[in-house]
Amino acid sequence: MADKSIILDYSCCLAEIIGGNGLNREQVDRLEKEMVAVHEKLAQMRADDILGFWNLPWQDGLETAKINNLVSKWRDKIDNLVVLGIGGSALGTTAVDMALHGVWRLALPATGQRPLKIWVADNSDPRNFYSLLNRLDQDRTLYNVVSKSGSTAETMSQFLIVSERLNKKLGREKAQSRIIFTTDPQEGALRYLAEREGYAALDLPSNVGGRYSVLSSVGLFPLAMAGHDINALLEGARAMAERCAVPEFAKNPAYIFAAMAISAWRAQRNVLVMMPYVSDLFGLAQWFVQLWAESLGKRFNLAGEDVFVGQTAVAATGATDQHSQLQLFMEGPQDKLLCFLSLDNYGRDLEIPCLYDDMPAFSYLGGRSMSELIQSEARATASALALEGRPSLSIRLPSITEHILGQLLFMLQAATVAAGAMLNINPLDQPGVELSKKLTYGLMGRSGYEEFKAKLLKQATPYIV
Amino acid sequence: MADKSIILDYSCCLAEIIGGNGLNREQVDRLEKEMVAVHEKLAQMRADDILGFWNLPWQDGLETAKINNLVSKWRDKIDNLVVLGIGGSALGTTAVDMALHGVWRLALPATGQRPLKIWVADNSDPRNFYSLLNRLDQDRTLYNVVSKSGSTAETMSQFLIVSERLNKKLGREKAQSRIIFTTDPQEGALRYLAEREGYAALDLPSNVGGRYSVLSSVGLFPLAMAGHDINALLEGARAMAERCAVPEFAKNPAYIFAAMAISAWRAQRNVLVMMPYVSDLFGLAQWFVQLWAESLGKRFNLAGEDVFVGQTAVAATGATDQHSQLQLFMEGPQDKLLCFLSLDNYGRDLEIPCLYDDMPAFSYLGGRSMSELIQSEARATASALALEGRPSLSIRLPSITEHILGQLLFMLQAATVAAGAMLNINPLDQPGVELSKKLTYGLMGRSGYEEFKAKLLKQATPYIV
Repeated sequence: MADKSIILDYSCCLAEIIGGNGLNREQVDRLEKEMVAVHEKLAQMRADDILGFWNLPWQDGLETAKINNLVSKWRDKIDNLVVLGIGGSALGTTAVDMALHGVWRLALPATGQRPLKIWVADNSDPRNFYSLLNRLDQDRTLYNVVSKSGSTAETMSQFLIVSERLNKKLGREKAQSRIIFTTDPQEGALRYLAEREGYAALDLPSNVGGRYSVLSSVGLFPLAMAGHDINALLEGARAMAERCAVPEFAKNPAYIFAAMAISAWRAQRNVLVMMPYVSDLFGLAQWFVQLWAESLGKRFNLAGEDVFVGQTAVAATGATDQHSQLQLFMEGPQDKLLCFLSLDNYGRDLEIPCLYDDMPAFSYLGGRSMSELIQSEARATASALALEGRPSLSIRLPSITEHILGQLLFMLQAATVAAGAMLNINPLDQPGVELSKKLTYGLMGRSGYEEFKAKLLKQATPYIV
Repeated sequence: MADKSIILDYSCCLAEIIGGNGLNREQVDRLEKEMVAVHEKLAQMRADDILGFWNLPWQDGLETAKINNLVSKWRDKIDNLVVLGIGGSALGTTAVDMALHGVWRLALPATGQRPLKIWVADNSDPRNFYSLLNRLDQDRTLYNVVSKSGSTAETMSQFLIVSERLNKKLGREKAQSRIIFTTDPQEGALRYLAEREGYAALDLPSNVGGRYSVLSSVGLFPLAMAGHDINALLEGARAMAERCAVPEFAKNPAYIFAAMAISAWRAQRNVLVMMPYVSDLFGLAQWFVQLWAESLGKRFNLAGEDVFVGQTAVAATGATDQHSQLQLFMEGPQDKLLCFLSLDNYGRDLEIPCLYDDMPAFSYLGGRSMSELIQSEARATASALALEGRPSLSIRLPSITEHILGQLLFMLQAATVAAGAMLNINPLDQPGVELSKKLTYGLMGRSGYEEFKAKLLKQATPYIV
């Protein structure tokens, strides 16, 4: 099992390795003590059944059976699955599909068996959505409407548009069969509509929030449709959940991650950069950005006091961003913690040939492989930061498989709730987005929100140039 | 002309509108005085001919004639242009092509005339590059190797791999004709090789750095190949360059942008979020991330003193990120300035039909359009932030055309060097990336870099979990 496990290396957060900006022994000891209380808090949350995501790796077979039935029914009849969802209903699916099928999965011609394409429509942008609706072959397309609340404006508007188009084209009954909901098992407009009109509907458990939902039907259904092994994904998550359940600080990757990130935050490092040295993991970094931002960005602590906490996670790609953001990371303010993701086995490799060997810009590359180059760059960048006394974490992935991704997704979710416990805030809610929603309802003329229209900024302002 | 100009609205940076976190009259007056000195500095830099990008909108016709010749020669013979480049050699091309042809430009089946596809290979990741090389029809593919220095390791390794493959397939002469360089007009390995071996080569002027090069051949050649109107792009840039040349603070959008961003930075807002309410502008936000990070993230000021400055730019997408990062932006620390990009005309629109009108989650949407929804969300979010006393800038785009993009690109570049002048640093260099490069050379066995190998972090560490 050891060779199939991801490894978290925190040496570059320690004073012993990077000098004065790292944690000294005493600080690590204090963190270790703090994590005892964090462990108790999380155990209590699990006992109270509010950490629903922690149960997902052990979910019973009922939901996966429903998913498998839908996959059997549709897999050969369609080429495209369009996911209508935003935020947590979109990011996890994109993260895993991109990791396994590549950033160019929708663009490159297939070799061998053509995989089903997942198109994630995660915006209310008409430019974008128009081209999708008008250029995909609708006879070979299935829609998955994903919304926990069943009332997300962006997703509901997409659903209404798609619904009417399919009704006109296929007739009502056939149109309805082309749309599958994923929503709360009891509540909300989509659930009500599913029951009233007979739409197929998958369950997102009530105690699982959108940003923690990738291992529920929200992620599992589209990922299974695209041919990914969802059992291996859950199995990887189970293996990691066991590692994250141990009380010992130094053995628990979620606790180490949370402790390093939050101690950095307390030392004015308000930016956490998630930087995989794998282009195909950019989606995973974007998934993490939401998880960390929405879970930890909070005005109130659990005692109801103003605290205004939250570390800004930034998605980057190595080696690409060495030519974009690295200058800032190396020389800018000491306001960041970097987290690198490195990969042992890229699955594919390319030999760099010996050409123009009389020229020093080329000769050292000849005979090496591209994976050696990118792995050297990852190691060099972490080393360069360390030499400048700048801290980083490194997550080492043996390969990119469903099992490894399941481990990684679970670890980062467990680290997020551990970080929430350290900050003494609720990592599961998002009250701050309500005002903007209500102002939007006011503008869109939704009944009951008239008062909010008056609060909007005027569109004409003298302060323009 | 007025209706074709972009507008910068800075009202939500002012105390008059957002209260105590905004700038009061006196602070604005001080900024206005500061910008007098900034204006003189920039004028001196232009006189010294070191702000090469400022001349690009007026570039003589020689280089564009070369570009047009190459386009005429190749346009009908190929379907794919692969750009081998990283950082500034990649981001501007992606930004403009994505803005005009959409995020799904490589993936969706074409309607009407099939546009040439630009594939930007901007990483040394073998997973990614392998699939590109093996799945594109090489008979219909042209390569553009873009590197100012002519020695970028990622790009040179790609070039060697491609070169050998094409040599084997097409023979040396034909293979060479399929590879076009863009590099410094006099210096570097690529220029030398072009002259020695007879590769076609376009010029990136010596006084234009990678991140300021989108309006040089670096961007213009691939964009012209993909069918974009590069004259309109340059014309838009010229129109904006004139607006950015006026000394009056309140009439100069670059000065207003720089002054608002840097005064926010001085008030501990070390994060600047670039958030277009247009999915297709995510690439533009990523282009800006590099421009701002690499230009302003500096250890030394112009007097050689340690200053460690730099604001972290973050790319986000509205409305998508309302369901990801907005919670943090609304409730987290007051450490951010947001910059929204809104769009008047989305080019396409979709009516939201009246279905299920008995249900409040749907009824308010019926009869509205999708562009009304996203525009309402943009306005609602800026308003919600303002109500919470959180500052933002808004850039308003009339539409998305080459002309408008030319304006936007130029304005942000001019704002970046103005910000550099405010911080008293050199916005044109990137000394901080050298150490990581040298360590990589050491690992890859490049002669002369042996000493750096010893400085690397050990790979085995006791601090792992």
